[in-house]
Amino acid sequence: MSLLDRVLEKNKSYVKNRKEKGREEYLSSHAKKEALILTCMDTRLVGVLEEAMGFKRGEVKVLKNAGNTIRDNCSDVIRSISLGTIMMGLKEVFVVGHRDCGMTKENIEDIKKAMLDRGIEEQAINKIDLLKWTGIIDDEKENVIYTVDKIKKSPFIPTDIKVHGLLIDTNSLEIEIIVDGNKEKGEL
Amino acid sequence: MSLLDRVLEKNKSYVKNRKEKGREEYLSSHAKKEALILTCMDTRLVGVLEEAMGFKRGEVKVLKNAGNTIRDNCSDVIRSISLGTIMMGLKEVFVVGHRDCGMTKENIEDIKKAMLDRGIEEQAINKIDLLKWTGIIDDEKENVIYTVDKIKKSPFIPTDIKVHGLLIDTNSLEIEIIVDGNKEKGEL
Repeated sequence: MSLLDRVLEKNKSYVKNRKEKGREEYLSSHAKKEALILTCMDTRLVGVLEEAMGFKRGEVKVLKNAGNTIRDNCSDVIRSISLGTIMMGLKEVFVVGHRDCGMTKENIEDIKKAMLDRGIEEQAINKIDLLKWTGIIDDEKENVIYTVDKIKKSPFIPTDIKVHGLLIDTNSLEIEIIVDGNKEKGEL
Repeated sequence: MSLLDRVLEKNKSYVKNRKEKGREEYLSSHAKKEALILTCMDTRLVGVLEEAMGFKRGEVKVLKNAGNTIRDNCSDVIRSISLGTIMMGLKEVFVVGHRDCGMTKENIEDIKKAMLDRGIEEQAINKIDLLKWTGIIDDEKENVIYTVDKIKKSPFIPTDIKVHGLLIDTNSLEIEIIVDGNKEKGEL
């Protein structure tokens, strides 16, 4: 059975089960807690991160990319947070990095070699600044601080938005504060 | 209590509870199903989408942005899928659009007005092509087809990766196939 067929089969029984158990909830698209989480695509955060932060379906919006990082002002993250805050009522952003991030373990030479081995054209690679393009990071904490700063300084995000920086352990799921967005706004 | 304090308090009891109930699972960063989901930041998908597709923690990686769309080859999506497939062993991508997407309901005039009202500098707005920058979409299905196509045609993503396109209903969580990536690869 292909993975797609498995997904469709699982979905069928999920939908049926949800209906039978009366678990259906009709929610609006407005995030009730008016907050957004920016985190990593890492598989160990899947299905647990929101719960580990005490959030339920309907309460927050979630952005994910490789390394919860921002490469430039034209990134998907800036765009999504800009629209989320200006058009969709979001007021706080939680940048949630995690320990043991794969994006700290890559280096440009290995990436370039692997790209060529997998058939990526050298011409395409030469057109980009591979280091900037990949967004690999040196340190998870520094990356959280950097990302919070990029969001706060973006010309496309209102200055009254609170931006917090957190770090989660991928095993214990324990959260540590890196940047307290309340203090930054002069509140205790 | 601030939202940040609430998150930290909830996390403390979550971590304690998880430890006491023996729910801790130490997983590697490798996604066991070797698949990635690209979906929207919409709050109604939070905490349910992966389960509705039959996936658990540790099985898939997940990317999220506003409108599960791709604006250009330098997007976070292309970068993350490129690294995910070349460096992290992913073999299939599921682009999962959803009905009632907020990104179909915005228009450039309203966005520009709202940006100015919220203090975004006109000079900053004038430096970008606002329509392309925001990535607003006309139709959820067409956007899934477009996004699948952009991933398949990206010079930075190996051509042997299967890319599927799905659409999920935000209320029933029922999934419909838009693009069958198996068929595209000549398999039944």
